[in-house]
Amino acid sequence: MEQFLEEAKSASRVLNTLSGSEKNRVLKEMAKALRENSSDLESANAKDMEDGKKNKLTSALMDRLFLDESRIDAMAVAIEEIAGLKEPVGRVLDGWVTEDGLKIEKVSIPIGVIGIIYESRPNVTSDTAALCFKSANVCVLKGGKEAEHSNRAIAKVLQDVLEANELPRALISLIPDSSRAGVDKLIKMDKYVDLIIPRGGAGLIKHVSENATVSVVKHDKGQCHTYIDRDAKIENAIKIAINAKVQRPGVCNAMETLLVDSAIAKETLPKLKLAFDAEHTELKGCKNTQALIDVADANDADFDTEYLANILNIKVVDGVLGAIEHIVRFGSGHSEAIITENISTAESFLNAIDAAAVYVNASTRFTDGGAFGFGAEVGISTNKLHARGPMGIEGLTTYKFKIYGSGQTR
Amino acid sequence: MEQFLEEAKSASRVLNTLSGSEKNRVLKEMAKALRENSSDLESANAKDMEDGKKNKLTSALMDRLFLDESRIDAMAVAIEEIAGLKEPVGRVLDGWVTEDGLKIEKVSIPIGVIGIIYESRPNVTSDTAALCFKSANVCVLKGGKEAEHSNRAIAKVLQDVLEANELPRALISLIPDSSRAGVDKLIKMDKYVDLIIPRGGAGLIKHVSENATVSVVKHDKGQCHTYIDRDAKIENAIKIAINAKVQRPGVCNAMETLLVDSAIAKETLPKLKLAFDAEHTELKGCKNTQALIDVADANDADFDTEYLANILNIKVVDGVLGAIEHIVRFGSGHSEAIITENISTAESFLNAIDAAAVYVNASTRFTDGGAFGFGAEVGISTNKLHARGPMGIEGLTTYKFKIYGSGQTR
Repeated sequence: MEQFLEEAKSASRVLNTLSGSEKNRVLKEMAKALRENSSDLESANAKDMEDGKKNKLTSALMDRLFLDESRIDAMAVAIEEIAGLKEPVGRVLDGWVTEDGLKIEKVSIPIGVIGIIYESRPNVTSDTAALCFKSANVCVLKGGKEAEHSNRAIAKVLQDVLEANELPRALISLIPDSSRAGVDKLIKMDKYVDLIIPRGGAGLIKHVSENATVSVVKHDKGQCHTYIDRDAKIENAIKIAINAKVQRPGVCNAMETLLVDSAIAKETLPKLKLAFDAEHTELKGCKNTQALIDVADANDADFDTEYLANILNIKVVDGVLGAIEHIVRFGSGHSEAIITENISTAESFLNAIDAAAVYVNASTRFTDGGAFGFGAEVGISTNKLHARGPMGIEGLTTYKFKIYGSGQTR
Repeated sequence: MEQFLEEAKSASRVLNTLSGSEKNRVLKEMAKALRENSSDLESANAKDMEDGKKNKLTSALMDRLFLDESRIDAMAVAIEEIAGLKEPVGRVLDGWVTEDGLKIEKVSIPIGVIGIIYESRPNVTSDTAALCFKSANVCVLKGGKEAEHSNRAIAKVLQDVLEANELPRALISLIPDSSRAGVDKLIKMDKYVDLIIPRGGAGLIKHVSENATVSVVKHDKGQCHTYIDRDAKIENAIKIAINAKVQRPGVCNAMETLLVDSAIAKETLPKLKLAFDAEHTELKGCKNTQALIDVADANDADFDTEYLANILNIKVVDGVLGAIEHIVRFGSGHSEAIITENISTAESFLNAIDAAAVYVNASTRFTDGGAFGFGAEVGISTNKLHARGPMGIEGLTTYKFKIYGSGQTR
């Protein structure tokens, strides 16, 4: 592993010498190669699908795993879109002249070697490889075991393109030892690896965070809330609450708990129940909610659960301060929303809530790179530092200071 | 410890409600209180000095430890300067409107609770407390054992000012258990602590980095190089080399190794030797250097040593590529300089070298917050992510996205 990572690290220096147009040309060749090799990719995928059947994977997992020509084409399109992104390296982020006459430029640079640990979907292999290549980072990929044949085949296609362009295959690497022990080694190799991005279940993320000596950008749970304030437009509130819960319940930016101002609970809760019943949402509520509408009981464990399903907790709270108190206790710092027409109430919520994305009068479902206009998404970070919230390709860069002098000494 | 940190965390919410002018008023009161209590501080310090004598601390350490009225006044002045800094929280870092009509603002916010582990100098206690307070962060301070009485007395003065302003004393906390075991607990409390900044010896930094689950901003070694290129102005080169080595050899941005282009080694090395001999610098050199001037032998271990003393390695390298190769191998990513009048050579060095600060025609000694114009310095980060290089008060902030909608759903 160490020798492998040393190679990856030294390969990363080649990337600094490539111009943006050279990188984009290689990316377009990668997209083309995926399309041209789609029958090879499909037969590799067929092996994974067969193993999946033997191992009795759920139909949802099997669907994530599956590749056909149109999904392979979508992977190619994603790479072409990444090629079309603005050059992320070499941006001048800040610049000034010091009292000593030094001209300082703060410039974006690649992070270096990035380890990415992810689950079954094979398109993550090509997306991530392309995002890292565009941002001049070396990626070390550790995909899900279920997708091993597919991931190997995809990586091979991309590596062949690298080689045809006289670039080291190590720029896009699969981890040589994909066992738990291999991962445990990877996350401690801070001499060679600059960042680890674990995308997957809570167990994986916890394990990586607790054991890594390399910096970690987590993609952790989204315990998202929507608070309906006394000064909300009720039709807005219902529309947004429904959207935040039911449009795609299985994702991290979906709402798990709806908070309703006690001042309007009596008139609002029946309307909300009607709307959610029409969407077949399973409702749970606090005692005060249960006094007004017929729902199951919600306890503290429920308020702490990311359902990732069409299930919703409802809690009556004492105004915006009550909402803030609940979110401080149960929120995971992902996405939180207030529905109100009152500017002071909105600002106090926006300022008090410490989350990556805090919304006024909009659905928490907007927390992603695409909706934010970032073009491509590395993921949604629940870190507090480096990258927070939707993480575009800029999240794969850091910076250095270039300082131009004319003989200055201290 | 857990209960203590829980208090610190919840105290941090108060800070979000203070305006900039309220914070600055409290800071000015803190400065005043330090001056007014200077005799108390001096008698606390006298106990540390006495213990230091008993424990036979070096005179350098004793000097770092010592407080008198003028040093206490300097601490007060530093706090007043921090009060004068631009408000670091609430800056709009970026802003745009999405295709869906959402108005997104990326806004700077405090990090939360910051643990700072440092060595003997007591002024770090007041500097750090003031920087954290100004940036609306709670600090948990772990100072050197040698300065325990002084640190307690300083913290008490600052905490009394907090209390007089009806603010929780926990905003400026000393770690309750300052043993190694206490530190080991602190660095794993990611539920309550958002960042750890270890300032101190290599052993401490390594221990914290390897064992923390909290994010760490390291202030690690500076293995800094200056490369004199064939196209350098020689008088510039000598002046800068001398400054980088001898002006203050004991600091992290001082040069440890001088690289000289083989094309000009024969004429330049004797001039360099003359200049360094006048400064009583102990010189070591590679074989090629030894063939030209009379110096001791420098081996790979020397090239890897941060002397923090008036000792210098000299190596003859094969042009800018040779210099880059040496720095890639031995550099610590802190500060690196090239002396050249050739713009292409300068740019290739600036682009290839991955260090926090890369200089053309200036001394590496400029890598600090003051010289960069940041006003106050938290330290010099050798992290690659979050904060890199000189870390001003902005390094104590992170960001969130505030999103203003008008009923948008997906």
